[in-house]
Amino acid sequence: MLYLPEIKKNMNLESQGERAELFRSMHHRGKGVLILPNAWDVPSARLFESEGFPAIATSSAGMLVSLGYQDNEDIGLNDYLAAIKRIAQTLSVPLSADILSGFGSSKKDVEITVKGVIESGAVGINIEDFDHETKKLHSLEKHLEKIKAVQEVSETIKVPLVINARTDAIRYADGDERQRFEEVIRRCRAFRDMGADCVYPMGLSDKTLIHEFVRALDRFPTNVMIRKGLPSIKELEDLGVARVSFGPSASYATMGFLKRISRELLGNGTFSLLVNDAISFDELLSLAKKREEKS
Amino acid sequence: MLYLPEIKKNMNLESQGERAELFRSMHHRGKGVLILPNAWDVPSARLFESEGFPAIATSSAGMLVSLGYQDNEDIGLNDYLAAIKRIAQTLSVPLSADILSGFGSSKKDVEITVKGVIESGAVGINIEDFDHETKKLHSLEKHLEKIKAVQEVSETIKVPLVINARTDAIRYADGDERQRFEEVIRRCRAFRDMGADCVYPMGLSDKTLIHEFVRALDRFPTNVMIRKGLPSIKELEDLGVARVSFGPSASYATMGFLKRISRELLGNGTFSLLVNDAISFDELLSLAKKREEKS
Repeated sequence: MLYLPEIKKNMNLESQGERAELFRSMHHRGKGVLILPNAWDVPSARLFESEGFPAIATSSAGMLVSLGYQDNEDIGLNDYLAAIKRIAQTLSVPLSADILSGFGSSKKDVEITVKGVIESGAVGINIEDFDHETKKLHSLEKHLEKIKAVQEVSETIKVPLVINARTDAIRYADGDERQRFEEVIRRCRAFRDMGADCVYPMGLSDKTLIHEFVRALDRFPTNVMIRKGLPSIKELEDLGVARVSFGPSASYATMGFLKRISRELLGNGTFSLLVNDAISFDELLSLAKKREEKS
Repeated sequence: MLYLPEIKKNMNLESQGERAELFRSMHHRGKGVLILPNAWDVPSARLFESEGFPAIATSSAGMLVSLGYQDNEDIGLNDYLAAIKRIAQTLSVPLSADILSGFGSSKKDVEITVKGVIESGAVGINIEDFDHETKKLHSLEKHLEKIKAVQEVSETIKVPLVINARTDAIRYADGDERQRFEEVIRRCRAFRDMGADCVYPMGLSDKTLIHEFVRALDRFPTNVMIRKGLPSIKELEDLGVARVSFGPSASYATMGFLKRISRELLGNGTFSLLVNDAISFDELLSLAKKREEKS
């Protein structure tokens, strides 16, 4: 059982609960695709918000690499939550946090993590069923237990976190390609039946397989990640996909952009990419303003 | 007096000293312009390094906004040093840290800051003569006292930090434009005579004035910041400028790039800017490897 009074008294859980429900409502079928940009730090998150995305997510890889870590739980829970909180407190729209596989293997570990995630101000999570270190899938039962832990904390604290349950079975399950795809379906159906809000078959990007997957899940909200070769947003919408996230692609693209800036400077001695179509100093500072400070 | 044994025993001060001297040697006149990219986090710094820049700097604005702060000393010294250390421990080339006006107004404050900067692994600093909160210039005497504090710590610890002494007199001194420019010259001459390694007349970007400034300083190493309208690198070289830094411009440009990504997605439902000319997941992870781990 969680100790409720620990949740900071100055948090407005009611409005956090409303943000969670608002975020949940963005996943309903027939409302069109939710395009969810994953940010790596405060200004990347705020920039996406100010451009009009209705909700923001964190990218674990983007955020961890930005802080000098590999894409695993080495950073430790407290520093990770602090990074989520820095972003959450600047956003007005809902924030979903990628929490890897929950920072720990026990139900209790996941409870502690989720409590911290809610305290940090996020209203949704991604939770995945494999270990980044060993590249091994957890058992389905283990992942269902973790999802249940998330639900129990959400209920106790009365912030109904939106749960995006991810499986990496496409890459890490046993068997051939077809068997692994069927394991993805089996797992995602179980996540759905357990009460997850959205399922995330990581690595699914082929149009025919997406079609088959969405039908096998009875058009249950499904998240796919943007990558080269993914069908267009319009096609994904027609396929019945509910949500398209960036994953770490904004970090990949930004590093590519910094390469082009570097090559222009070191190759030509010019800096047009660095100064054209850029924002100003004041705009940059405005991206770090906390929610209550924003005009 | 500083307490030397506090410096971590596992630090290789000898090689840090060599990196400091290497960085200093990049400022010598007649060797061409040092183009110094300012990064905001670990991967932006490492990307610049891997593209071939011989040294990297931090941008205070870029780094602070990335962590959710305004461009001032509100973050507190410890968190700021931790952010510098995260970057320093991934780089093989010299790192110069922007330390605003030194995190405090007394000589003792600056000593503590500089000791921490050396512990964090940086081998150069920028120190400025105005208060970000009040937008008031410090007296020249106050700034010289701070530069002296930096020198004393460097000498005690035997890591000869490269000091880039910045003045904001162009914007914040009294008098008309010409009088403020003359105050910039007066201050930078005093920084030079005190033993700074490089002077940084913030805001100087006009070709004629750069020419006059460099002559007035007898071609002493001068840093200018990239901005729209700055002469080309070749012209700056001809003018005798020793060092051209990015300032926060990579952050400004990146936010402009994220705007274009957002507008393509929300406007057209396509994501070509997000997936073309991007780096891979493995490349992103490699940018967070610590110095000793790199292959």
